[in-house]
Amino acid sequence: MPMSWTGEIAASPGGAPSTGQQRGDDAGYAPPAPGVPLRIGLLGCGNVGAAFVALVDGGSESIARRTGIGLEISRIAVRHLDRERPGAGDRAGLEGRLTTDPDAVVTASDVDLVVELMGGTDPARALVLAALAAKKPVVSANKELLATSGRELSAAAEAAGVDLLFEASVAGAIPLVRLLRDSLAGEQIGRLTGIVNGTTNYMLTRMSEEGLGYSEALAEAQALGYAEADPTADVEGFDAAAKAAILAGVAFDADVVVTDVHREGISGLQTSDIEFAHRLGYEVKLLAIVERVRSPDSGGPGVAVRVHPAMVPKDHPLSSVRGPFNAVFVEGDAVGELMVYGRGAGGKPTASAVLGDVIDAAHHLREGSRGRSSLRHPVDLRPITELYSQYYLTLDVADRPGVLAAVASVFGQHRVSIRSMEQIGLAGEARLVFITHPALEADLQATLRELARLEAVERIGSVLRVIGDESLPSRAK
Amino acid sequence: MPMSWTGEIAASPGGAPSTGQQRGDDAGYAPPAPGVPLRIGLLGCGNVGAAFVALVDGGSESIARRTGIGLEISRIAVRHLDRERPGAGDRAGLEGRLTTDPDAVVTASDVDLVVELMGGTDPARALVLAALAAKKPVVSANKELLATSGRELSAAAEAAGVDLLFEASVAGAIPLVRLLRDSLAGEQIGRLTGIVNGTTNYMLTRMSEEGLGYSEALAEAQALGYAEADPTADVEGFDAAAKAAILAGVAFDADVVVTDVHREGISGLQTSDIEFAHRLGYEVKLLAIVERVRSPDSGGPGVAVRVHPAMVPKDHPLSSVRGPFNAVFVEGDAVGELMVYGRGAGGKPTASAVLGDVIDAAHHLREGSRGRSSLRHPVDLRPITELYSQYYLTLDVADRPGVLAAVASVFGQHRVSIRSMEQIGLAGEARLVFITHPALEADLQATLRELARLEAVERIGSVLRVIGDESLPSRAK
Repeated sequence: MPMSWTGEIAASPGGAPSTGQQRGDDAGYAPPAPGVPLRIGLLGCGNVGAAFVALVDGGSESIARRTGIGLEISRIAVRHLDRERPGAGDRAGLEGRLTTDPDAVVTASDVDLVVELMGGTDPARALVLAALAAKKPVVSANKELLATSGRELSAAAEAAGVDLLFEASVAGAIPLVRLLRDSLAGEQIGRLTGIVNGTTNYMLTRMSEEGLGYSEALAEAQALGYAEADPTADVEGFDAAAKAAILAGVAFDADVVVTDVHREGISGLQTSDIEFAHRLGYEVKLLAIVERVRSPDSGGPGVAVRVHPAMVPKDHPLSSVRGPFNAVFVEGDAVGELMVYGRGAGGKPTASAVLGDVIDAAHHLREGSRGRSSLRHPVDLRPITELYSQYYLTLDVADRPGVLAAVASVFGQHRVSIRSMEQIGLAGEARLVFITHPALEADLQATLRELARLEAVERIGSVLRVIGDESLPSRAK
Repeated sequence: MPMSWTGEIAASPGGAPSTGQQRGDDAGYAPPAPGVPLRIGLLGCGNVGAAFVALVDGGSESIARRTGIGLEISRIAVRHLDRERPGAGDRAGLEGRLTTDPDAVVTASDVDLVVELMGGTDPARALVLAALAAKKPVVSANKELLATSGRELSAAAEAAGVDLLFEASVAGAIPLVRLLRDSLAGEQIGRLTGIVNGTTNYMLTRMSEEGLGYSEALAEAQALGYAEADPTADVEGFDAAAKAAILAGVAFDADVVVTDVHREGISGLQTSDIEFAHRLGYEVKLLAIVERVRSPDSGGPGVAVRVHPAMVPKDHPLSSVRGPFNAVFVEGDAVGELMVYGRGAGGKPTASAVLGDVIDAAHHLREGSRGRSSLRHPVDLRPITELYSQYYLTLDVADRPGVLAAVASVFGQHRVSIRSMEQIGLAGEARLVFITHPALEADLQATLRELARLEAVERIGSVLRVIGDESLPSRAK
């Protein structure tokens, strides 16, 4: 149980206090004296919010013992006062703190720090800006907000001189933001390659291990609550793209928003692609990739950010990330290869990441300091057409002499070199399965356009990028 | 190039400055003003030290741009002034900073922060204590020192009110200390399971993937420079035990020293054990395990720390950590399962971890703050005989009727329940391969003692603990 709010509740007239009347309080706001718990204003009490309340209410004594920081949740803004919140502990403990007025929570004199777990951009953006303007640190798990307004919010935090922390907005419980910001502060990061969407990774694991088709895997993910009734945000890569945008900001201080991210989903994947991947020594994963690149013309620095399915070699650590787990593989100049792995979603794991940020922010507030700033700067965002990759692709062609020569000649004209080819007989047709050497995406696209015009080509199947040796950790020789 | 030390060198009479004469300077020590680079005194310039010099000398501008913190290495204590240090950049850049007097580096007025990369406990311990007494933060990569004097050094840092950071002392470049201290500050950690010795993991990978014998694998590791001429520290688990002791300190604030750690190495492993592991769906790994346990008598809290080879299920993330890489798997109440993976050794990766700590300490020094303290407290260390585990064991027995019944009855008398048994015929003998259900270590030991006395038992082979379902991440259903 928190230590001091109960006294306040007792003093307020029965029922939910109408905290909206206290908005004028912000003029008198001052941080609490040492020894007094830090008071958290929570915006949103869904799955993650309820788990966060339970963690702080139930764990404040052990947190104080371990970190020297007392925490209490003094106010909680919700949409519906009377909804059941089974994860948050008993109802009586919640009731006195609930309010439907989030503005009042942000400005209240008994709120030192704001935790934003509402999701969405409106009204979350305005509330976070109001909290920062009142010089209150903000911890947010809101990927939509960070992926669209990261630059504005970082600048507001910088101007106010307080923390804006958002570890839980990418890959749930995985401490990736802190890794990049603190542990690797002196590192030249070259590339991040992440499995950052648990729903699609669950589906791909089931397709790979049990031979399920895409629709079966989706139905199973929906039945388990991993996928929503409308799975578009997950399966078409929008969720991963938002996280990729945030990662680009943390890794490269780059002002990247979700719509900047090249995005391809997994809905076109065939079970046969996964079977082929296995035969060739790969797993298929939906990857978010953020990397430093050089412009082919100017040679100047740039950043490329993309989400697409890819073939990952079986001895790459990302290939063994199974089920709903997330992982991000980091390549840096000095550090070499690092990977962090963990739960990418779920109330308790996400709440744990939020709590880590809250303790950080509370520590800084006590010390009158703040964490290292992470402003966003415009960067030269390079399009995917300028990137090099290996490709896997399948063509269904007429099964007659001369077709392979015609196809191979199209590859050659566009400077796409073939590493391996396999031919499978189908009824009256043949399926050609190619893996290319590294080629420029623009050249591959031109190849595909021309192949589609060949009379002998019945159908171009899946085209998957192959994570090649260039991004593999050095192997044991 | 660093920004200001060149001026000092020019002012000093040619050759290595005799910094020993400046020892009285420490009375006048004051941190540099904002905008002035933070001056690092480096103790030791071997493999990691040279890589650290190259990182700071070559990267100080980009570090300053990214973090707002200027760094320079003002003094470097070495044993031999004239040794070649190819990793540290050109010799001329080094020479003016080298000295053979480490005491002078620690107390010099132009040293704000001390980086200890000498290794060993003497004189490192005294030098670190002197630096802390002079209120200078210390960053160390010295596992021997931290695993023997962690409590004393933490207390000295606390008394001085400055940082003592040691990320690089465990698992090289993997940011495990920061993860436990910051990201998981509010978390109830249950257990850490780590592959923290790259030499043995390289050997086990080769034995597993290529069927090499122990001696062949060791010879190969020695040829590649992964193992030393005397490999005892690695193969008998001493190195891993030191890291386990440090991890116990960080995860549980526990005052554990290396000699407290139950330790078994890999030198007794047979290729046949690894073949059996594969058939049963396991890999064999040398694990360091640090966990919270309850005393069987009092039920009170305790900590158990151990290093031994173990069978790890193939779908556990630790099983796919290959070659010289390290990884640590963390289980916490709210966060669930987390794993961090990366290079556990090597000059540049270790130097990268040191640099992350230096930037942290520099940031705190500038802000007049410090990181969260991590004092060590005595804990109730539980012996391995009180732990429960599943076991794999092999017995060579006389091949005649009734032997299995006699053997099985010994297991039963000691409350060790058999999960599976397989019998392999040998010439005139039989080999029995058992996997047990979870059993108390004391009971298993009693079983083994009694089995050894059975006339029909020719030989007890390997006994390996099996990491069971209790430490597996929840599987995709």
